[in-house]
Amino acid sequence: MSADYFSDFSTVRYEGPDSDSDFAYRFYDKDREVLGKRMEDHLRFAVCMWHTFSWPGSDVFGAGTFDRPWLNGPNDAAAAKAKREAGLSFVEKLDLPFYCFHDVDVMADADEIGAFRDSFAEAVDHLEELQEQHGRTLLWGTANLFSHPRYMAGAATNPDPEVYAWAASQVRDALEATHRLGGANYVLWGGREGYDTILNTEIGTEMDNFGRFLSLVVDYKHKIGFEGTILIEPKPHEPTKHQYDFDTQSVFAFLKRYGLENEVKVNIEANHATLAGHAFEHELAMARALGILGSVDANRGDPQNGWDTDQFPNSVEEWTLAMLEFLRADGFTTGGFNFDAKVRRQSIDAADLFHGHIGGVDTIARGLLRAAKLIEDGRLEDFRSQRYAGWDGELGRMIHADGTGLADIADHAVSNKLAPERRSGRQEWCENLLNRA
Amino acid sequence: MSADYFSDFSTVRYEGPDSDSDFAYRFYDKDREVLGKRMEDHLRFAVCMWHTFSWPGSDVFGAGTFDRPWLNGPNDAAAAKAKREAGLSFVEKLDLPFYCFHDVDVMADADEIGAFRDSFAEAVDHLEELQEQHGRTLLWGTANLFSHPRYMAGAATNPDPEVYAWAASQVRDALEATHRLGGANYVLWGGREGYDTILNTEIGTEMDNFGRFLSLVVDYKHKIGFEGTILIEPKPHEPTKHQYDFDTQSVFAFLKRYGLENEVKVNIEANHATLAGHAFEHELAMARALGILGSVDANRGDPQNGWDTDQFPNSVEEWTLAMLEFLRADGFTTGGFNFDAKVRRQSIDAADLFHGHIGGVDTIARGLLRAAKLIEDGRLEDFRSQRYAGWDGELGRMIHADGTGLADIADHAVSNKLAPERRSGRQEWCENLLNRA
Amino acid sequence: MSADYFSDFSTVRYEGPDSDSDFAYRFYDKDREVLGKRMEDHLRFAVCMWHTFSWPGSDVFGAGTFDRPWLNGPNDAAAAKAKREAGLSFVEKLDLPFYCFHDVDVMADADEIGAFRDSFAEAVDHLEELQEQHGRTLLWGTANLFSHPRYMAGAATNPDPEVYAWAASQVRDALEATHRLGGANYVLWGGREGYDTILNTEIGTEMDNFGRFLSLVVDYKHKIGFEGTILIEPKPHEPTKHQYDFDTQSVFAFLKRYGLENEVKVNIEANHATLAGHAFEHELAMARALGILGSVDANRGDPQNGWDTDQFPNSVEEWTLAMLEFLRADGFTTGGFNFDAKVRRQSIDAADLFHGHIGGVDTIARGLLRAAKLIEDGRLEDFRSQRYAGWDGELGRMIHADGTGLADIADHAVSNKLAPERRSGRQEWCENLLNRA
Amino acid sequence: MSADYFSDFSTVRYEGPDSDSDFAYRFYDKDREVLGKRMEDHLRFAVCMWHTFSWPGSDVFGAGTFDRPWLNGPNDAAAAKAKREAGLSFVEKLDLPFYCFHDVDVMADADEIGAFRDSFAEAVDHLEELQEQHGRTLLWGTANLFSHPRYMAGAATNPDPEVYAWAASQVRDALEATHRLGGANYVLWGGREGYDTILNTEIGTEMDNFGRFLSLVVDYKHKIGFEGTILIEPKPHEPTKHQYDFDTQSVFAFLKRYGLENEVKVNIEANHATLAGHAFEHELAMARALGILGSVDANRGDPQNGWDTDQFPNSVEEWTLAMLEFLRADGFTTGGFNFDAKVRRQSIDAADLFHGHIGGVDTIARGLLRAAKLIEDGRLEDFRSQRYAGWDGELGRMIHADGTGLADIADHAVSNKLAPERRSGRQEWCENLLNRA
Ligand SMILES: [Co+2]
Ligand SMILES: [Co+2]
Ligand SMILES: [Co+2]
Ligand SMILES: [Co+2]
Ligand SMILES: [Co+2]
Ligand SMILES: [Co+2]
Ligand SMILES: [Co+2]
Ligand SMILES: [Co+2]
Repeated sequence: MSADYFSDFSTVRYEGPDSDSDFAYRFYDKDREVLGKRMEDHLRFAVCMWHTFSWPGSDVFGAGTFDRPWLNGPNDAAAAKAKREAGLSFVEKLDLPFYCFHDVDVMADADEIGAFRDSFAEAVDHLEELQEQHGRTLLWGTANLFSHPRYMAGAATNPDPEVYAWAASQVRDALEATHRLGGANYVLWGGREGYDTILNTEIGTEMDNFGRFLSLVVDYKHKIGFEGTILIEPKPHEPTKHQYDFDTQSVFAFLKRYGLENEVKVNIEANHATLAGHAFEHELAMARALGILGSVDANRGDPQNGWDTDQFPNSVEEWTLAMLEFLRADGFTTGGFNFDAKVRRQSIDAADLFHGHIGGVDTIARGLLRAAKLIEDGRLEDFRSQRYAGWDGELGRMIHADGTGLADIADHAVSNKLAPERRSGRQEWCENLLNRA
Repeated sequence: MSADYFSDFSTVRYEGPDSDSDFAYRFYDKDREVLGKRMEDHLRFAVCMWHTFSWPGSDVFGAGTFDRPWLNGPNDAAAAKAKREAGLSFVEKLDLPFYCFHDVDVMADADEIGAFRDSFAEAVDHLEELQEQHGRTLLWGTANLFSHPRYMAGAATNPDPEVYAWAASQVRDALEATHRLGGANYVLWGGREGYDTILNTEIGTEMDNFGRFLSLVVDYKHKIGFEGTILIEPKPHEPTKHQYDFDTQSVFAFLKRYGLENEVKVNIEANHATLAGHAFEHELAMARALGILGSVDANRGDPQNGWDTDQFPNSVEEWTLAMLEFLRADGFTTGGFNFDAKVRRQSIDAADLFHGHIGGVDTIARGLLRAAKLIEDGRLEDFRSQRYAGWDGELGRMIHADGTGLADIADHAVSNKLAPERRSGRQEWCENLLNRA
Repeated sequence: MSADYFSDFSTVRYEGPDSDSDFAYRFYDKDREVLGKRMEDHLRFAVCMWHTFSWPGSDVFGAGTFDRPWLNGPNDAAAAKAKREAGLSFVEKLDLPFYCFHDVDVMADADEIGAFRDSFAEAVDHLEELQEQHGRTLLWGTANLFSHPRYMAGAATNPDPEVYAWAASQVRDALEATHRLGGANYVLWGGREGYDTILNTEIGTEMDNFGRFLSLVVDYKHKIGFEGTILIEPKPHEPTKHQYDFDTQSVFAFLKRYGLENEVKVNIEANHATLAGHAFEHELAMARALGILGSVDANRGDPQNGWDTDQFPNSVEEWTLAMLEFLRADGFTTGGFNFDAKVRRQSIDAADLFHGHIGGVDTIARGLLRAAKLIEDGRLEDFRSQRYAGWDGELGRMIHADGTGLADIADHAVSNKLAPERRSGRQEWCENLLNRA
Repeated sequence: MSADYFSDFSTVRYEGPDSDSDFAYRFYDKDREVLGKRMEDHLRFAVCMWHTFSWPGSDVFGAGTFDRPWLNGPNDAAAAKAKREAGLSFVEKLDLPFYCFHDVDVMADADEIGAFRDSFAEAVDHLEELQEQHGRTLLWGTANLFSHPRYMAGAATNPDPEVYAWAASQVRDALEATHRLGGANYVLWGGREGYDTILNTEIGTEMDNFGRFLSLVVDYKHKIGFEGTILIEPKPHEPTKHQYDFDTQSVFAFLKRYGLENEVKVNIEANHATLAGHAFEHELAMARALGILGSVDANRGDPQNGWDTDQFPNSVEEWTLAMLEFLRADGFTTGGFNFDAKVRRQSIDAADLFHGHIGGVDTIARGLLRAAKLIEDGRLEDFRSQRYAGWDGELGRMIHADGTGLADIADHAVSNKLAPERRSGRQEWCENLLNRA
């Protein structure tokens, strides 16, 4: 069914900035060393099975526009198999190492819990073969706990414990599958873990149930010997009015509250950062400061639209800023850059899937190269260090010394008649440096 | 100088909903009992000394428009004294119990640290007399750590420890003054505790310095025997691009990180909630769930404008939702509702100060009455309780029981072939109930 | 199939503010006179056939949740018939005078153009009977030019003239059907009349094609003798990145450019106003000032969410402001208040459709009563008139007199040494007056 | 007083992309030909006298931070003279051709109307000398009709005709001065031409007064023989809640309404575009489509902050998109790129003024070079043309032919059984092409 869907396309290769091809990498040169590491090892790119293979091109105002063979009929066993084959074959054609999936993305539809588990099990068996065959592996797996009507009021935060139990079953199976398929991480995105109206909602109860769920998942991970990282993906809202995992700081609050800050990290999505009112690089910098940077969903939003447009990244400038924070954080351990991105609804050709991914890969690769250049140049980092140099001086050390009290510091100011000299923050100069990279 | 500024106005009294006067309360009836407590004791209203007495009606695009006698020349000792007198006299005319101030709001200007402290000390002596004379007291004090150019890069998060030491001196004095004046709380609003560009900023260092500062303040509070509450006021940005105390969840993350979650609470401002992308009632509900609801700044924003407009509250509907959360949280202990609000720049008459405060007081009072009615009616609360009833049932208790693992819950779902019944969330019905109150 | 869907519900009647029923009007008393007109005649309420009868409760992240009999299988002739019957029967149960539809809402699916026309014709025949039977009529009809994949790049602004021709066929038929069914208006909502990326778009060409289309529709309306009003519904974006009919001023620019400002009016949607960065009442006031206020879609957005949530209106405060502008504009001629609103995805019961509409009707009715009270009171209107009184004075008349030049006015200022006295704008007092209504 | 303020800095010259200097242009090579025109003639850069010379570094939350000699005392004749000298000397050091001013930026303070005019006249005499001496000239002049308290409720939209007359006097003088100084344009920015609350506002009256004002200005321009362009600068809000000149489409509506669309063009500010919910390039493309592109204020906003941050442009990507529209529109006739931008409040050094302007100039120059490369490459333009090719075909021509009616087009669709083929919009491919430039 899908065997031939990408047959017109060759494997995408690095051809350098001057290539004339629409189907080549200009900046992503996987074996090139950047600050002592191969680009492929830095970036750990992954293709997603949902937007790219399961979405028909529909939106709230209109039906699907794409002509994908595996989506043209019911999502039965044959269609799901064709989709999996198309998926892994596409990842190989892009020569990227990883893919990601929700349980429902890779399996035939099934409503009853036993049938659901069987269908998923069949998919996992097949994926194991396909990974081998195509030489690709799993960046992360997850369970879809938001699309089925049963989850209309949330999964781990649902008022009904039976829904919670269903979710537990899906997560157990998805976690085990991820483990078996060699997945590097397991993600929880709380699609509907929030509320639509506070009038019918008890935030405290819901957060406690959610904290309990996450603790159980962490315990189970250890029990089965899964060594990947558990990740939470923050998002402020949509489809809910408000989601508890609003942003990185909110997730940290949640993790600390339930004692999980050393067990769970964040999967930061660029689009979700901006929906939360933050720059993408802010979320990375905050995750670095809090020690919970795990992985990244590399899709952007539209700066003028207030919903999750999930577009392929195309701003090298935004990604230079992001990769500066990424490199300052020493990059990923188990994480990677996943394209949780969809081609536009009008981009109906198979070629468009290539354009989207190739553009995304090169945008990020070029951001990495520019950030590395800035770090090697050193001026920006030096300026920043100098700005905080006083904290290594006498007064800075006194302030942090055991036994120092507020009055000691205040007395120091008074008795030395401190009148601190103002120093320029040099924002425009910093921005100019960035543009020179 | 200001003795006569309000001489045309009588004390504002409760006259009931049918009053024809522009200068009467229609809903705020301070001695009326609502759910077993006097309205005055529920609401604990405070007038602020900054917007209402120190701001001349300027904005970024234009000069001051108001004709306040104490602002027409330099802010010297005589002007500051006149301002303090006008302030306390106004609070008495409104018959509200409290006021709030920053150090610089109530004192004559002084640049050198010794002169600054002397000027503030003089102000505090006078305020002590005025409190006695007018029968009013202090809801909270604070130090202004953002207006002077020395704080252009923050106070506790400044790259320069000398600025930090200056801030320590101001806070020590303001905290001591608050203690001496019988203040019920002490507030820290991190006006510039954030960053303008991440390019010159080290978030980790700044947050650690800020955490240290807050710990020192808490220690000092105990040392001097101040029994009021220490409060942090979240705000997402403005004047900075990003402020660390973005919202209630961010503040909780910060407090947990530095072990201060039992020492410090939040002072939630309605306008800051909406700037952070939250409904006002959301921030209250979240603070309740996290156990850190301290006090409230009762000024609103404009739903179409993206800056802190600091307007007097006038939506009874918004305040009914807010007061529901407030009552669910059992109201304030030490906190109160402070009018961190300014009359519009075109509202140049002394009468406009009355209109702003009277409208705000009545809006909140009416919200309280409506919320109380809803709680007494019980249907909304019952519906909400019923929605979560499953958590008191067998499955709900099993999920939270010691020793239960993820697999136990999943097995329960599988072996019982759970297919949870969907129940309506009844949002429109809830909203209709609200409108009937 | 749907005969019994609403059989548990009686006709909704006015029972007054003290009614205990969840299924009664508290403020909408259709025969009550308000400022000389019956409420029913003022408000001209309409139920929509799309959200309320054609939408299954799906969103971008999940499948439908509702159990409507006519939506449970393919949308064939029997299902479409059942839907039409359910629709008109519901409007009668609500005792509202009008309904609205897109062609595809009321007909069986058909892809080929001939079959499409036949299917629609069958639906119109049936609607004519149902209108008679239920004593309801059509506020407006429209054609859906955005859901079918052929419209993915717009209808009248599509780069392909064949799509434009398809749209012309749909609009011809929908306009004729509206005429035949006695519709009071015909609406064009440019669902995808805009662009997703400016890189592949020629705005000038698209706007000229759109202008041509609208001119042709106006000509055709006159040709067939339709005396209803042609309406354009502004929306700033979603699903497109940018829509040409951004807001009322944009539509006016468009109408003026193509000479249609006396032929076409606006259908203002509250939710679209706020998405465009405007208060709802602003759009009404602007349409009044420009003389193009036609009709209103009465659904609200969520102030914290950046997409079209299409919720039932529930803010009496917002609607008091809106109805003030409405009454100042002397209300509707052919327009009405249409509920382009959907119950929340969790509101799965038939009862929830009643709650949504009843709450919406009463919110608007109460807004009307409050606005009328303010107008009868007169103080607000008087204050506003007084503010502009100078324009009826000598200088005001001189400024507008024929022959007056800039220099004449400037000379007046100079020779009279004008130093205009400042007068308070009294915003807080105005807001307080509003809250007393 | 200011003679030496920039004495440490040499004239900024083009040194090419590999320059090591912080004080050189890397892309702005004024004599280089781009698409047949010198860069200097394309770009026509201007420095503004307000943010760069009149603003002390204050914001709503704090006092000025800069140490500019001419701002350290009262704004008397000597200070104003020093400021003008510093201004023109700085423009020369940047080797840019133009500057811009409001009347009050260049003159000593004066309150009484006669004194005000004398003070401004003195400033204009001096500017005439300075232009000669420094070899610079005026891109545009304007009058500040928003900072003085008399304008708190607007200028041409003020309820008080005396304020209107004051504004007429300022505009007459500023227009004459602009004419005398050889200014290429005259700008009106309606700082407070809008409203704070609709409750006290009559939009219709205010717009009519504003339309009258603009007509009078246009007449006066012709009367005195000024051949520059009259420009209106759109802005959606701030400081007002709502401004009538919301965006380019709103301004066009206004111009059409008062018959001024051939007399007045827009001065588009990047920051105002984004505050209005538009991409910057959208506003340029719309102005091109409407034939009213006049000039540009080249300052950006912060994508996460909801107020006018007025930062120097630093996104080459944003400016490549903008310059594509600029080149498609055949660039400026009388307009130019004006830096209505301010260095950050922490950027307190004289050097920072250079960093801001140099970065801005190079960002725009580089955008121009990239856009020119795309146009020379031709693929993007070709793809776009091909997309609309059908409009030059038979059906496209028929649709626009005289005598064609809606029914003719519909009949064509029906009789040909049109089923239009879908073609990819290729958004990702377009974005990739852009990134290759
Ligand atoms: Co994601
Ligand atoms: Co997303
Ligand atoms: Co506050
Ligand atoms: Co505030
Ligand atoms: Co609508
Ligand atoms: Co809508
Ligand atoms: Co500007
Ligand atoms: Co601006």
